[in-house]
Amino acid sequence: MTETSDALKFRRAAVIGIGLIGASLAHAMRAGGLAERIAGFDLDADVRARALSLGVVDETAESFAEAVKGADLVILSTPVGAIDSLCAEAHAHAENGALVVDTGSVKGAVAEAARRVRREVLFVPCHPVAGTEQSGPEAGFATLFRQRWCILTPLDRTDEAYRAAVEKAAALWRAVGSHVEVMDAAHHDLALAITSHLPHLIAFTLVGAADDLESVAEAEIVKYSAGGFRDFTRIAASDPIMWRDVFLHNREAVLEVLGRFTEELALLQRAIRWGDGETLKKVFTRGRAIRRAIVAAGQETDAPNFGRDKKDA
Amino acid sequence: MTETSDALKFRRAAVIGIGLIGASLAHAMRAGGLAERIAGFDLDADVRARALSLGVVDETAESFAEAVKGADLVILSTPVGAIDSLCAEAHAHAENGALVVDTGSVKGAVAEAARRVRREVLFVPCHPVAGTEQSGPEAGFATLFRQRWCILTPLDRTDEAYRAAVEKAAALWRAVGSHVEVMDAAHHDLALAITSHLPHLIAFTLVGAADDLESVAEAEIVKYSAGGFRDFTRIAASDPIMWRDVFLHNREAVLEVLGRFTEELALLQRAIRWGDGETLKKVFTRGRAIRRAIVAAGQETDAPNFGRDKKDA
Repeated sequence: MTETSDALKFRRAAVIGIGLIGASLAHAMRAGGLAERIAGFDLDADVRARALSLGVVDETAESFAEAVKGADLVILSTPVGAIDSLCAEAHAHAENGALVVDTGSVKGAVAEAARRVRREVLFVPCHPVAGTEQSGPEAGFATLFRQRWCILTPLDRTDEAYRAAVEKAAALWRAVGSHVEVMDAAHHDLALAITSHLPHLIAFTLVGAADDLESVAEAEIVKYSAGGFRDFTRIAASDPIMWRDVFLHNREAVLEVLGRFTEELALLQRAIRWGDGETLKKVFTRGRAIRRAIVAAGQETDAPNFGRDKKDA
Repeated sequence: MTETSDALKFRRAAVIGIGLIGASLAHAMRAGGLAERIAGFDLDADVRARALSLGVVDETAESFAEAVKGADLVILSTPVGAIDSLCAEAHAHAENGALVVDTGSVKGAVAEAARRVRREVLFVPCHPVAGTEQSGPEAGFATLFRQRWCILTPLDRTDEAYRAAVEKAAALWRAVGSHVEVMDAAHHDLALAITSHLPHLIAFTLVGAADDLESVAEAEIVKYSAGGFRDFTRIAASDPIMWRDVFLHNREAVLEVLGRFTEELALLQRAIRWGDGETLKKVFTRGRAIRRAIVAAGQETDAPNFGRDKKDA
């Protein structure tokens, strides 16, 4: 993968689904001069209008077919539940030789759906591991993907055109600042189940459990949230539809890592019940090492409290 | 509680346990001119030496007794497991009329231990709901308590001297920038179990479960941690001894809220297994409202990703 970003220029990019990810990629491509023209389509007419007036896209289309007409790059950046119908649309309407990438957080289901797309359309499943808790075209920004990893899970094809398409997809992500990793879809779905899907499930669960605790008022939960709770509310504020679709489409891997989590939780529950301080201390001591590694890898700030309290100084 | 911080000035404050909280309170008191002299004691001689050379305290003592001699304010800022022996020390050595505050995250156990302290010593249990994931005297900073809540759980005493001591403790916390709330210890322990103790337990558990998953390498967990996992590592990097002691001393409330959490988790697990998107969406939709309330209450930043990624821009 030696192609440099200088060589990368698409004539027309079509962004399908103009939310946080689609809008950020459009901004990043514009900033990098990676496309002559960026068209956008979203099922929500209001989103289309906002994306256009924000300058996220150069033009909007009234349909998938209209958006991808003449496009040599198609970006599918919708919740993953739409992937079947998007693949049917790509099969019917995408140009021969077009590179199609998706940005879904689940990849096994995408590989399944990609069977609907004819071979002349070059579909490379991608997952940029980046995001914020905000949604919609207004939430997009050009540097979202910088220093983050993007995982490619190419389809089971060895033809030259497809291999070139994988190279080009990798070059696109590198051009917007990401590191690129290639792996198979099943391994992706397990690795992301533990690093992303389970954390979101746990955060949603904790917020729900707090909401249900009649004996502690919501006002108190808000007041004392700096004790730890507020950290969980960030990812629990993520887009509900996107996350519903993730769990519906990565069931097996999520249930597998959830099983590990509940085993570990049962161990700690037992240690609390029986006053076993040694076990608690042993488990609690593991946290610092992995955080240090994450900071060292440039994936996290080393400022206390994420640096969020600097305004207080 | 009308006393202003202008009127508040201690002759000698003794900080017992010079970690993040003790050092921060010393810095804040110095910044506010709240004490003529600040003495420090820590069981760890190295911590004592560092605290002195950092200027956290004006002097260090070789024992609890030496530190509190002549002190009209004693601050117990150790892990809560030390509270029994600290109360025995305070009983034996604190001056008559001295105000003693602790800073522990659990208050029922503190009230129990406070029975060991003679009535002439005025012990007001306190919990400043503030902190970072860092430890030791180097981690302390003067603004840690600003805009945070401090909860007072006064003992069951109605004498005038004690009521005045409660007023003075409240004035101290206000003078370092906190809002003050008064409640009974049992309610405190339940409210903090959900807003602080359970979130920490869950974070420690998730990091432990990730560590145990042989099929996903630690390097991958680090790389893809921006998908959500990294948020949990912040509080999982907190002091293991402090947190061991919290769980050993707030067992009932933690097990109660943990029960609620596992019920909610079982509900979501079942929804995932059976493809029940409606239930998932319903639970996931609750997160945004509570986060908005926390941001509105000044307890959280509204910047995406806690603002931690600004350096990337």
